[in-house]
Amino acid sequence: MTNKPRYAEASMEAMYRIFTVPEAPGSTLGNIDQKLSQDLAGFLQEHIVAVEKDPEELQKDFSDSVIPEKPIFVSDQADFLMDKLVAQSVHTASPSFIGHMTSALPYFMLPLSRIMMALNQNLVKIETSKAFTPMERQVLGMIHRLIYQRDNAFYKKWMHEPGHSLGSFCSGGTIANITALWVARNCRFDRDPKNGFAGIQRVGLFGALQHHGYRGAAVLVSERGHYSLGKAADVLGIGRDFLVCVKADARNKIDLQQLRDKVAELKANKIAIIAMVGVAGTSETGSVDPLDEMADLAQEIGCHFHVDAAWGGPTLFSKKYAHILKGIERADSVTIDAHKQMYVPMGAGMVIFKSPSLVSSIEHHADYIIRKGSRDLGAYTLEGSRPGIAMLLHSGLKIIGRSGYEILIEQGIEKARTFARMIQAEADFELVSEPELNILTYRYVPAFVKAKLAAASAEEVDRIHDVLNRLTKRIQKNQRARGKSFVSRTTLTPEAWDRRRTIVFRVVLANPLTSHEILQDVLAEQRYIASTDTCSECMAELHALCDDRPLHAHAV
Amino acid sequence: MTNKPRYAEASMEAMYRIFTVPEAPGSTLGNIDQKLSQDLAGFLQEHIVAVEKDPEELQKDFSDSVIPEKPIFVSDQADFLMDKLVAQSVHTASPSFIGHMTSALPYFMLPLSRIMMALNQNLVKIETSKAFTPMERQVLGMIHRLIYQRDNAFYKKWMHEPGHSLGSFCSGGTIANITALWVARNCRFDRDPKNGFAGIQRVGLFGALQHHGYRGAAVLVSERGHYSLGKAADVLGIGRDFLVCVKADARNKIDLQQLRDKVAELKANKIAIIAMVGVAGTSETGSVDPLDEMADLAQEIGCHFHVDAAWGGPTLFSKKYAHILKGIERADSVTIDAHKQMYVPMGAGMVIFKSPSLVSSIEHHADYIIRKGSRDLGAYTLEGSRPGIAMLLHSGLKIIGRSGYEILIEQGIEKARTFARMIQAEADFELVSEPELNILTYRYVPAFVKAKLAAASAEEVDRIHDVLNRLTKRIQKNQRARGKSFVSRTTLTPEAWDRRRTIVFRVVLANPLTSHEILQDVLAEQRYIASTDTCSECMAELHALCDDRPLHAHAV
Repeated sequence: MTNKPRYAEASMEAMYRIFTVPEAPGSTLGNIDQKLSQDLAGFLQEHIVAVEKDPEELQKDFSDSVIPEKPIFVSDQADFLMDKLVAQSVHTASPSFIGHMTSALPYFMLPLSRIMMALNQNLVKIETSKAFTPMERQVLGMIHRLIYQRDNAFYKKWMHEPGHSLGSFCSGGTIANITALWVARNCRFDRDPKNGFAGIQRVGLFGALQHHGYRGAAVLVSERGHYSLGKAADVLGIGRDFLVCVKADARNKIDLQQLRDKVAELKANKIAIIAMVGVAGTSETGSVDPLDEMADLAQEIGCHFHVDAAWGGPTLFSKKYAHILKGIERADSVTIDAHKQMYVPMGAGMVIFKSPSLVSSIEHHADYIIRKGSRDLGAYTLEGSRPGIAMLLHSGLKIIGRSGYEILIEQGIEKARTFARMIQAEADFELVSEPELNILTYRYVPAFVKAKLAAASAEEVDRIHDVLNRLTKRIQKNQRARGKSFVSRTTLTPEAWDRRRTIVFRVVLANPLTSHEILQDVLAEQRYIASTDTCSECMAELHALCDDRPLHAHAV
Repeated sequence: MTNKPRYAEASMEAMYRIFTVPEAPGSTLGNIDQKLSQDLAGFLQEHIVAVEKDPEELQKDFSDSVIPEKPIFVSDQADFLMDKLVAQSVHTASPSFIGHMTSALPYFMLPLSRIMMALNQNLVKIETSKAFTPMERQVLGMIHRLIYQRDNAFYKKWMHEPGHSLGSFCSGGTIANITALWVARNCRFDRDPKNGFAGIQRVGLFGALQHHGYRGAAVLVSERGHYSLGKAADVLGIGRDFLVCVKADARNKIDLQQLRDKVAELKANKIAIIAMVGVAGTSETGSVDPLDEMADLAQEIGCHFHVDAAWGGPTLFSKKYAHILKGIERADSVTIDAHKQMYVPMGAGMVIFKSPSLVSSIEHHADYIIRKGSRDLGAYTLEGSRPGIAMLLHSGLKIIGRSGYEILIEQGIEKARTFARMIQAEADFELVSEPELNILTYRYVPAFVKAKLAAASAEEVDRIHDVLNRLTKRIQKNQRARGKSFVSRTTLTPEAWDRRRTIVFRVVLANPLTSHEILQDVLAEQRYIASTDTCSECMAELHALCDDRPLHAHAV
């Protein structure tokens, strides 16, 4: 337990001291560093996912709103953090934490991240980043090449070229998507001096639409698109109603006919189409849109084609599965997150641009930094000051290598397929979405309910679904609370169930240490939870709806 | 020097291994960790700022665009990074690096940042952040209280309240400013069901302006405002022409009469005023706008008042100088960067909202995360996934304390004043902007030029200024190349020089270890550079323009 804080002094000398390099090792700070390192290794070795605590309870340790007057000792704060923050955090690296896209890190990331922290470079400008700028440009070049496979001459010419950029590093996929659509919007209504138009950059969206005689501007995406696209439509002034969500088919891929229909409708209504967004790995089901066909259509109507591959992009590392993303190489821009399937710590998003001059539509300068003609990366980013996290992707690419990432990607996809077969083999589980990559959804449906559903009327199915939804939610919450493993939940509208709102368990298989035994345990625990008091009410309702006597439930 | 990389294996077993906790200490990774720690301490103890290298030269080590096929050993990558990245980086923590806002870190930030890296929490949602969410909410509450000084009851009610937020943590001041203006824009054109208006969030800027009968939407700020505001105007669809830049006075503060005139002009032209932005610490001169008077005007015309205190906000820690920011407590929103004067590593920006319900105008949800009614912070941020860097500000606030930050702020302001007096005491330097906080600008003007300028015609002043501008640029570049110290440069239009374009040295005094001796050395080195071959051409021109014979230059 943490003791009462002991106060340190707040003198000028004390302030000098905290900015002075401690003499490592054996210094107080060196000892704290070593102890923290051991304690953290201990925490990471324990396989419990999280201790469930009431939010109100959690808040108690973080309830004071006054900044403490007197300084406390580093060791006291370190103890506090281990006790109140680390012990109450979620173990995202646990092999049984399979519910979200935040996963385990290779352990080499920890010592190497020290370099980033200690140097505290700022990538906005070479003066505050030096070699970090060409390093980041190289990483962007490598990812560009992974996607577009241009030749050596292309990268020799463009990778380090001032006034150009092969992409932007940013804090995450949301900023990457916003940046891509910002570029698309600005290119769509770029300056046109011949016609006396100064460009949307200067006159804004209102002036741009007026000048061109449009009544609105739209972006098209499947209904499975990430919620950041709605945010982008709002922020960019397009409006959420103009993020046109096209129906997805039974496999959760955009319906191309519906897409064509929407395009025709927008044109008829004098709505400018700014961009079409293909998704390569939807957040909920991991599905990949028919990118090649979308590229055809984008080309046909002459609009920007963006691919949100925040999750699925690294599938390109796998020779066996890269074909799933066929057509991505025709995208004008691609979002890809290194902190997802490239196993870099949080805060490493990228948007990659096919053409190195596309960024000129969002270029900006200032007198005291990022002056014109410089190599400064700050001229092409939505963010200003940025840390040198590209060095951790640089390290991942070198220490894991293409062949290493290939193994990681393939084991994830294959594990998801195996898990899908495991679910289908169980009498009391239902696979809701087949994994295309390494994400799948399913739910718990007792065998007697399955039997009933096979021959039930639409109304009966409605009623049963309603109870199943509540049951799934209960099981998921209870499993999370038990703290041994974690799957997430979401709501889908599967074709197989006539688009009924269906709450499902969602599983993301990115941690290589997640074993088949762990997956079996997850199912067993869910089945167990369904048999406990927590679920007895839902189960009773199901029995009633299915004319099944509780005692014989599993015999049906 | 780095040896040729030795290749590791890319097998499934090798991939398991990199995700497995190494047995500390004595493990290979443990040894690399310790060695890196020592090498970094060594680097940080050397006081050279940077080794100047030609960008083309720097690029050579980062020229390969192909992702390596085979993995290399962590130790080889660590050697590469130390050799090619660390050795070629800029020592932002050096006490003689006084040119930019990126400064030294207290050393306790390094061991504590291990916690953030190892846990890899994602603040978008409590399920992936647990205690980090109330911790971040507490930090936002503490900063809110620093600015707005509400009572205990207020924070007890709002700090942890679902559906509300006292602010957003984000990667930096740019995203903070964009978020603030996004909120301002959306509040200005919020949903109004009575009048059949669905809100700008849904219909976009075009529909909003049409509905309200406006011809545009504008944001007002002084010409000294940060370049991120231009980016915000572009991104938000307002357009850069509608970021109305109001002239600053002789002290680089917004001219209130001109501001009133612009407001009247916009109203007459049917341009909606979305927000007025006050700057608390301009990037170039560290000046603070008359916030209280701006708040009066914003109140009078009923528009959102935002204060960009990314740099100057922490002045509030000082009882002696907080009055400079008088009026900030009336702002609807405030940007403040913890990675600037709160000495947290890069990537810790914040926007604080006076009213806890203001964020509802940008609220968003998704089915699988940040569901309605949750405490998830992701519902109110421009970014999606975000790291737990708030824990480092939490640590700064506790380990440094209010009284510690007060000392740091006050020493910076007072050192800047001392430096200004030092500059004025020299016969051959000219103070261009007096420091209000801890930033000042000056230039090198030989005594004989000063004498001439005092009695020169406007045309002569023009010509002399032109040469001085080139001289300042030369000196700054040469000083940077010499690598001992670093000041930045920018271009101002000082009233004292009838708004002539004037290139100046810009100094930011945030590192407590920057001593008076270092400042003396900076001036001495600049004077020395002016006497070398690099500057001989400029000096000869000055002599010619000032009718001064070179040999007697300093006797004039």
